[in-house]
Amino acid sequence: MMRMQYDLRGTLTFEAPVEGRSEITGQLETLMKQATKNILEDSEGKCDCTTENDMVHLRIQSELYKAHDAFVRLTKMIRESLAQKFNITLREARIDRYVIKFHLELEAKENIHIPFASSVELQGKECVITIEDMDEREIGRNYVERMISLVHDKVAAQHYGGKGCWEVIWSSPKKETLFNSDPSEEMLRQGWVVRGATKGRWFLRPQVTRLVRTMEEIAIDEILRPLGFREVIQPHLDSFDTLLKTGHLSGVPGEFYYVMQPTTRDPQSWERFTDLVKVTGQVPQDELTKMISSHNAIICYAQCPNIYESLSGCTIANESLPELLFDRSAVSNRNELDGTHGLERPDEFHRIELVYLGLPDQVVELKEQLIKNYRHVFDDILQLEWRMVKVTPFYMKQARQPLGEDIHSKVEGTIDFEAYQPYKGLREKSEWLEFQNLTIVGDKFVKAFNIRSQKGDLWSGCSGIGLERWVLAFLSQKGLAPQNWPEDFKERVGILPKPIKTC
Amino acid sequence: MMRMQYDLRGTLTFEAPVEGRSEITGQLETLMKQATKNILEDSEGKCDCTTENDMVHLRIQSELYKAHDAFVRLTKMIRESLAQKFNITLREARIDRYVIKFHLELEAKENIHIPFASSVELQGKECVITIEDMDEREIGRNYVERMISLVHDKVAAQHYGGKGCWEVIWSSPKKETLFNSDPSEEMLRQGWVVRGATKGRWFLRPQVTRLVRTMEEIAIDEILRPLGFREVIQPHLDSFDTLLKTGHLSGVPGEFYYVMQPTTRDPQSWERFTDLVKVTGQVPQDELTKMISSHNAIICYAQCPNIYESLSGCTIANESLPELLFDRSAVSNRNELDGTHGLERPDEFHRIELVYLGLPDQVVELKEQLIKNYRHVFDDILQLEWRMVKVTPFYMKQARQPLGEDIHSKVEGTIDFEAYQPYKGLREKSEWLEFQNLTIVGDKFVKAFNIRSQKGDLWSGCSGIGLERWVLAFLSQKGLAPQNWPEDFKERVGILPKPIKTC
Repeated sequence: MMRMQYDLRGTLTFEAPVEGRSEITGQLETLMKQATKNILEDSEGKCDCTTENDMVHLRIQSELYKAHDAFVRLTKMIRESLAQKFNITLREARIDRYVIKFHLELEAKENIHIPFASSVELQGKECVITIEDMDEREIGRNYVERMISLVHDKVAAQHYGGKGCWEVIWSSPKKETLFNSDPSEEMLRQGWVVRGATKGRWFLRPQVTRLVRTMEEIAIDEILRPLGFREVIQPHLDSFDTLLKTGHLSGVPGEFYYVMQPTTRDPQSWERFTDLVKVTGQVPQDELTKMISSHNAIICYAQCPNIYESLSGCTIANESLPELLFDRSAVSNRNELDGTHGLERPDEFHRIELVYLGLPDQVVELKEQLIKNYRHVFDDILQLEWRMVKVTPFYMKQARQPLGEDIHSKVEGTIDFEAYQPYKGLREKSEWLEFQNLTIVGDKFVKAFNIRSQKGDLWSGCSGIGLERWVLAFLSQKGLAPQNWPEDFKERVGILPKPIKTC
Repeated sequence: MMRMQYDLRGTLTFEAPVEGRSEITGQLETLMKQATKNILEDSEGKCDCTTENDMVHLRIQSELYKAHDAFVRLTKMIRESLAQKFNITLREARIDRYVIKFHLELEAKENIHIPFASSVELQGKECVITIEDMDEREIGRNYVERMISLVHDKVAAQHYGGKGCWEVIWSSPKKETLFNSDPSEEMLRQGWVVRGATKGRWFLRPQVTRLVRTMEEIAIDEILRPLGFREVIQPHLDSFDTLLKTGHLSGVPGEFYYVMQPTTRDPQSWERFTDLVKVTGQVPQDELTKMISSHNAIICYAQCPNIYESLSGCTIANESLPELLFDRSAVSNRNELDGTHGLERPDEFHRIELVYLGLPDQVVELKEQLIKNYRHVFDDILQLEWRMVKVTPFYMKQARQPLGEDIHSKVEGTIDFEAYQPYKGLREKSEWLEFQNLTIVGDKFVKAFNIRSQKGDLWSGCSGIGLERWVLAFLSQKGLAPQNWPEDFKERVGILPKPIKTC
């Protein structure tokens, strides 16, 4: 265990004077001794107190036992004792000044700030956090521990921040280049897609919609049904509570689309708003802000969280394991940098999300079966040039956690599936398109959502099939003309729907 | 045309004195004469002006020509003339007091307020609007006309407000009652559904998901494909601009889920937010509000607007008419009164939306064909007890327009499809479930989105197939036990997927 040094000064304020009443100071001395003996002695700690008017000033020093926990326990002892014996009520308990020294695993490269700390001093691998003023509620809610974790994470991020894992673990043979234009531009030119009315969104017309639906059918028929995956339909908003469990809210809050609902549906309450819309032909933003509640949800971002949420607190029967589920109903939204990436990086896309829960062996076996089925689709049906890349696990990337041991793990972690895009340049130098991923999450999410199995460890995994990305990967290599498409795929597509003809 | 009486007093303020300069007052007199002759004389109007320091006070009275339009034209004449001849620049043009008298078609029942009017006096069918202070920009943007329309609408709403059209136009034969419980409660009890993490949302487990997908397949195979409907995938957010065109924003703003996006994706800018989440385990709403832009979109509500938006400004080739499209990708969201209605009135649901554009005859014919196919599904496959009801057209209801002639029209308007729910009581007295609708919109939406045909009038229609509602209508009458389901439907469903077993 890491050696810590805690030095806490706090004040308990009572509703009556405590100074100079010898029966009270005597009782306080007894409590100090008890606390030192029972709570702090083993960790080389001690506590003292003095009185002043209606206040008891406490000082707690310790090297192992957390002084803020001791403060909470001691406050409880003193509160109860003084209430019982002297009928004096505690009004407030606060930390006045709290200095925590500890060692870091890595040397800090630059200064950091964290909330609730008046200073964070870093010198090599030494860290001193000073807190000035913290109330009982904040102490009781574990803020201090999380502040220490945050320092560790921030220093670790200084080392691993930019870096991620990226290692090609399998490549398909090269394929003949049949097409080398940007398929998004080509689809726009041929009227297969039109731009949506808001940033980064597309309206897919009948031809490309047919391709998206064909990809969906292939995924279901060739990959999911043979393995026994069953479809569910999930709510397509994620609550903040759900995202706090997965870590997304502290990871990528800048990438979400936030959702708010009105405080009332009553048309009379909305009358000023609707009158203003009718007279001005515009939306009065200030008036709207008044009518809407605070944020508490986002539009689907990662698509697995609500599947876990639906099982939250459940114990899954052994006979039900592995539990194999998929959802294709939620529409995924991401606030991307700008709207200029075509269909490659849109703000809105459609995905089949697989979630599988099972004993660790079942999850590992399933991963292999999934990869086998994926290979069949990409090699035999779509005939793509593609590769598998081991990357930073999504649950670390999206929660912006420093890299831990998982990236060296043989089984846990994320595999990205990437396709070569001839229009981007040489296959050795250009950026390939990530069109899918597969992750073994281990026990992270089942623990976060308190999901258990009847006996044995429970693990889980996810895999996201990006339908527009499958289409783009395919069109990038084969082009928009059906005569160049592989026979099996062409049969599944059938005759392309007639276009919407405008003039 | 309705007789109006306009009496407008306004002030033009210049960057130099105009009073007492005879060459300027002479020129102003000439302009007044010209304006009275050219603009106002035919409508029994006149205009005068006086000068004071750097100001010209105008008074415009008229009975036909809109005085605010005359004010705009006169301002332009004076601005140009004084700039050219005397090198004096106009700084500002405002209305000081504007009184508009007009007749209403209906007698007002109670007082009303409208924005930008200091008073609205109503006496029988007489109305006097007084405006005190309005600037040039507001005048130029047609606020005054829209204010007058708003008065007409509000008075009309006093007469027609609560009432809507509701008339049964066809009923199926009665069916034997096989089930009379609430299917939502029964599904909850049997673990077919679990509550979502936010208001009015449900997680559909494999059994009911299979039913939803079967309904979707039936709709596509039996109704849409035979008529030549082609699938599209639309953005599932509607921009405010789109909703201003359809009238939804001034109609049902209390029923939307509003969407906001971050002002930046940069993780450093979000650091204080993410630090606070990490330390407190909660979402700091004030900090979040700072990081997020103003609202400019909602989550899909009506599902047809984005299909029209995608054709906005287009002329559709005759050979492409009728243009038959459907979308089943957007997830619909409505802020319902509370979350206690089970799956019957959830905040989130899935719908196939049909939009058809064509010459009026084509649209009317298509309506008949659709009804024929719907009847085949509800009578032969689902074997429902159901009826068709002529109701207030959705485009009036959702835009909260007073009822016009459409509800008496033989072809334009909305038909609701309703199913009897035995658990709600007697078929004659209980509320039936609206599980679908069909509307002929006429030219309203194509005009709003400026969509034209190569020759001839263009009309459009929509039909919304509520998939959860189809399932509920069916389960309400047949129950959850497959042995009571009609053979054809049972075959399409296949063996129900095994449940998620928890303990």
